[in-house]
Amino acid sequence: MRFFSDNSAAVCPAVMDAIAAANTVDTAYDGDALSRRLDGAFSDLFGTDVAALWIASGTAANSLALAALCPPHGAVVCHRDAHIQNDECGAPEFYTHGAKLFLGEGEGAKLDAAGVSHLLGSIRDDVHQAQPAAVSITNATEYGLVYTPDEVAALGEVARRRGLGFHMDGARFANAVAHLGCAPAAVTWQAGVDVLSFGFIKNGGMFAEALIFFRPDLAAATRYRRKRAGHLLSKGRFAAAQILAMLEGDLWLANARAANDGAARLAAAAGPRLIHPVEANELFLRVDAAEAAALRAQGFDFYDWGPGEARLVVSWDQPEAEIDALASAIAAL
Amino acid sequence: MRFFSDNSAAVCPAVMDAIAAANTVDTAYDGDALSRRLDGAFSDLFGTDVAALWIASGTAANSLALAALCPPHGAVVCHRDAHIQNDECGAPEFYTHGAKLFLGEGEGAKLDAAGVSHLLGSIRDDVHQAQPAAVSITNATEYGLVYTPDEVAALGEVARRRGLGFHMDGARFANAVAHLGCAPAAVTWQAGVDVLSFGFIKNGGMFAEALIFFRPDLAAATRYRRKRAGHLLSKGRFAAAQILAMLEGDLWLANARAANDGAARLAAAAGPRLIHPVEANELFLRVDAAEAAALRAQGFDFYDWGPGEARLVVSWDQPEAEIDALASAIAAL
Amino acid sequence: MRFFSDNSAAVCPAVMDAIAAANTVDTAYDGDALSRRLDGAFSDLFGTDVAALWIASGTAANSLALAALCPPHGAVVCHRDAHIQNDECGAPEFYTHGAKLFLGEGEGAKLDAAGVSHLLGSIRDDVHQAQPAAVSITNATEYGLVYTPDEVAALGEVARRRGLGFHMDGARFANAVAHLGCAPAAVTWQAGVDVLSFGFIKNGGMFAEALIFFRPDLAAATRYRRKRAGHLLSKGRFAAAQILAMLEGDLWLANARAANDGAARLAAAAGPRLIHPVEANELFLRVDAAEAAALRAQGFDFYDWGPGEARLVVSWDQPEAEIDALASAIAAL
Amino acid sequence: MRFFSDNSAAVCPAVMDAIAAANTVDTAYDGDALSRRLDGAFSDLFGTDVAALWIASGTAANSLALAALCPPHGAVVCHRDAHIQNDECGAPEFYTHGAKLFLGEGEGAKLDAAGVSHLLGSIRDDVHQAQPAAVSITNATEYGLVYTPDEVAALGEVARRRGLGFHMDGARFANAVAHLGCAPAAVTWQAGVDVLSFGFIKNGGMFAEALIFFRPDLAAATRYRRKRAGHLLSKGRFAAAQILAMLEGDLWLANARAANDGAARLAAAAGPRLIHPVEANELFLRVDAAEAAALRAQGFDFYDWGPGEARLVVSWDQPEAEIDALASAIAAL
Repeated sequence: MRFFSDNSAAVCPAVMDAIAAANTVDTAYDGDALSRRLDGAFSDLFGTDVAALWIASGTAANSLALAALCPPHGAVVCHRDAHIQNDECGAPEFYTHGAKLFLGEGEGAKLDAAGVSHLLGSIRDDVHQAQPAAVSITNATEYGLVYTPDEVAALGEVARRRGLGFHMDGARFANAVAHLGCAPAAVTWQAGVDVLSFGFIKNGGMFAEALIFFRPDLAAATRYRRKRAGHLLSKGRFAAAQILAMLEGDLWLANARAANDGAARLAAAAGPRLIHPVEANELFLRVDAAEAAALRAQGFDFYDWGPGEARLVVSWDQPEAEIDALASAIAAL
Repeated sequence: MRFFSDNSAAVCPAVMDAIAAANTVDTAYDGDALSRRLDGAFSDLFGTDVAALWIASGTAANSLALAALCPPHGAVVCHRDAHIQNDECGAPEFYTHGAKLFLGEGEGAKLDAAGVSHLLGSIRDDVHQAQPAAVSITNATEYGLVYTPDEVAALGEVARRRGLGFHMDGARFANAVAHLGCAPAAVTWQAGVDVLSFGFIKNGGMFAEALIFFRPDLAAATRYRRKRAGHLLSKGRFAAAQILAMLEGDLWLANARAANDGAARLAAAAGPRLIHPVEANELFLRVDAAEAAALRAQGFDFYDWGPGEARLVVSWDQPEAEIDALASAIAAL
Repeated sequence: MRFFSDNSAAVCPAVMDAIAAANTVDTAYDGDALSRRLDGAFSDLFGTDVAALWIASGTAANSLALAALCPPHGAVVCHRDAHIQNDECGAPEFYTHGAKLFLGEGEGAKLDAAGVSHLLGSIRDDVHQAQPAAVSITNATEYGLVYTPDEVAALGEVARRRGLGFHMDGARFANAVAHLGCAPAAVTWQAGVDVLSFGFIKNGGMFAEALIFFRPDLAAATRYRRKRAGHLLSKGRFAAAQILAMLEGDLWLANARAANDGAARLAAAAGPRLIHPVEANELFLRVDAAEAAALRAQGFDFYDWGPGEARLVVSWDQPEAEIDALASAIAAL
Repeated sequence: MRFFSDNSAAVCPAVMDAIAAANTVDTAYDGDALSRRLDGAFSDLFGTDVAALWIASGTAANSLALAALCPPHGAVVCHRDAHIQNDECGAPEFYTHGAKLFLGEGEGAKLDAAGVSHLLGSIRDDVHQAQPAAVSITNATEYGLVYTPDEVAALGEVARRRGLGFHMDGARFANAVAHLGCAPAAVTWQAGVDVLSFGFIKNGGMFAEALIFFRPDLAAATRYRRKRAGHLLSKGRFAAAQILAMLEGDLWLANARAANDGAARLAAAAGPRLIHPVEANELFLRVDAAEAAALRAQGFDFYDWGPGEARLVVSWDQPEAEIDALASAIAAL
């Protein structure tokens, strides 16, 4: 029973069907009918004009976003535990041609406005220091916490006052919105976000994330950067098809709710073992080595996060029975 | 009737089936059972130990190959008409961090050993000039010509004597091998090729090319570069599945033969209009503006290559009727 | 007797004196009194507001100029024989993070407006090709020819119409102006040039070139790039002192005239041996191996440019006697 | 009275004389007689074969060193307060093409072996994380502390066991050696250092640092990188002359001792105001705003390091009277 990563999950049936349906002859790259529908579909979803590009991975989406906001001699403020800092093998530095990441603090991988202001204040305004050009946050965070619209807006205001771009890594944006119950707009552009990496792959997609520019002018250069990075897939219609299928009838929200609900049930069972509140589909538990071994012996697969800590992720398609079994097993530890 | 590009073609049924069959839970990235079969499958095909990585586009595959062979302060010798020079928006420069491309000449986008030797001889061995580190050829070429094993070996010998790496852009490698009727080994590692971008997407795949290292030690750093470029797909099993399906029963060769055969029939109809011999699945024809318009009026879609020239590409799944119709139309011009 | 390169020449006395005079305690980097005079001094010289930075080498000056004009996914149009293409080991690619150089043709390393227009016309306006962002010319050229104000203006107009930046590599700008007898403004900003690498080192300086931005807003980011490249010297006052000494009383022009005059006398002696007209301080001669050996036997040092060709460069301080001797030796061949 | 930075100090007379003496015609770049003496001179000084290159700034020297040790997808371990992290505007990221800096802790900007081991242990050995490739320390540190040979050797052993390169930023290496009274070898290659940025500019030079490769094979590619960065000065003999003058009769040590001695006298006066022990030529004092203003009112110029802190640097040529005056002023606060 896999609770290791939502990356391991299956692709959801509607996406598989859409891929099959896209298997016709059409214009290559992103000139096909499906790709050309993306701008409109996301503009509808967000209630504002956006430019939307499919991207084959979250790492590439994040890095293209940062390259759109930060010059090579600039810097991006992010959390010390951010995916872009720790899990992308320097992809942001590759795409930005060497911009620096300035690392902030905060519980559960969340930045806050005061902390970011303080960090920004510590950077001398002279040529000896890379100057901050963007702020990047992850929503839901790497520890499964969710920024509220107000929290995002406070950070957005800090960014705006300093003239910085604002990026949201939304690898689990669906889980965040499902938790918040708000309009997608409220936690993005209305709160100052310029670019969103909108994740679909962990949530039932196959190989398509969406990169959403709330300042559509930023997309033009990004189209060249995408090609130059080898991310302009020649049969891009299959990427567009996945995303459109996920948007249809708000499947993305339904899938995320399913995963969040499963995580909430596990959280209830875990009680005081929880290291962080569970707001999305990830749990971080205190378990000693013997307990971890006991869970594994019962067939549960998960990630050892550090000494005495375990990460468990609930996928969109996690069977109820697996969740029940794990909840019982945790409660019985 | 599309003769515009094999990138527009559909994905072949065996690949679609393999993708569907891969839709189970498995380890993320390239830790899954299918991805782990690639090294073996290609080692069998080539009759030597290779390291094989799936890559979502030919541009990325080529660029990762060049980055493995050439330092930022080095240079790659390629043909003036090479895809890596003209059609990848500087991707080789991005991945190599600014290596230069030194451009050679030759009919039909083919380099030859004498020309490359001469070009190499013109580079001073001092720090003021980027020093050549690799040779890259495209087989079949951008004009649909095929390098024979002897031609490749002669270039490989030039590269070996100068201590250069040797890369083959095989976006249409299948069409080349289908034309040659030789073992894949004969035109690659036995002729000195170090790294091959083995294309599947134009030939019936969806989003998976294979990057084949005949010097498997070169693959280690490439795995980091692939991640850093955002090309380590989180559900990589779907990429591996496509490639394995194409290798199964030599489907890749069958598809390429079908495309080559179609092109041969068109070539026979075109006769003296041919600008280059037709050895793979591409034709370049002399047609004036009125003739081009006439063909389009009959429903044929193709690429205006330059004044008075047209490029037509036959896909693996091009219906016989379309080929017959086009052959007749060309003959009737 | 050195006719190998003006890089070998001595530093002129006024520059040595200025360096000695600068040896007082002052603010580090470019905050000193001398560095702060540069903007004004060059604004006076050019009759327009400019931003001026000292740079320790022509290669760095050129590369910083190109980085100011061209994004990583863009391209720079230059001549096939340009220094930035052939003699800087990929420095433009390093500083621009991988922009491409598109190579034009023309006698004596001179581009012309028609040729550049044609080259630009051959670039498809799509994401598969690096899009031209700048034109770069060398004045005087690598073959010692001088662009006139009209020729520069014609190229500037081509650049302007396409929205490209326009850079002049003026490693021997002084020699060009000395030849033209025009105002420095006439052959630069009045002819559309945005950035000039104004060379002093070959002309009697020690380690200071000036990078002149005729669009001063371009200088801001360049200050960061200069630091990031390790080119913000900590005792920059010694660089500024050299440049100010060269500007004082138009020493830069006097030195260049001396060199040009020497070259003109050699040219008169060389007559039909000249491969290119001699307009600055370089000569390219047809000499066979025996003739070259004979010159060397008489103590003349120069560069074998290719089979049967020699390059001779006259320095600002070349003794009259050496020039007389060489003129006689050439005439006697 | 300047205690702001040793970068503001004058150039020492022996260096000025050497520059004047070098003003003859010689081969350009580093082919001149003086540049060719560097390898030998430093091999003698260090008692082992080294390759030595002049570099016009410490930032460039450090960055070239790191680029020699770390691939673009790698990482460099350094202290959170390291110059390469905070004061070079991302130069290490520029030269390494985006390698990451992993930041360690330690009093007075000193790393220790246990801390580095722990940091290295926290990096997962998989492609999602940039893998450490080098350790970089600054000696004397940014806070004026000096690593002993044993401390360096312990770090060198950590690096060696993990297969990492080891770089020492020696912008104030002379001050460190003057403090230690040891052989230069003892605190460098004998302690595992692979590359040393040996600073001369703060210590009486004008525009020449030396980059010392204790593994001379690493220098070959660096020569190309130096050119590519525009740091191969065309009249390099003036850089070599400075360094040779500083080595002559151990002038570098004499200058550093003078600066250290001055700092020691100030330290005695400062007593409990010292934030760090004074081992080289820098002092960090606790002074409140009124005290800082009082010192400035008496004509002392220095750097406000943070709230309630001041940095004072003693230069090689600081007049005794200035030191006496400042010592008295500090004591009288």
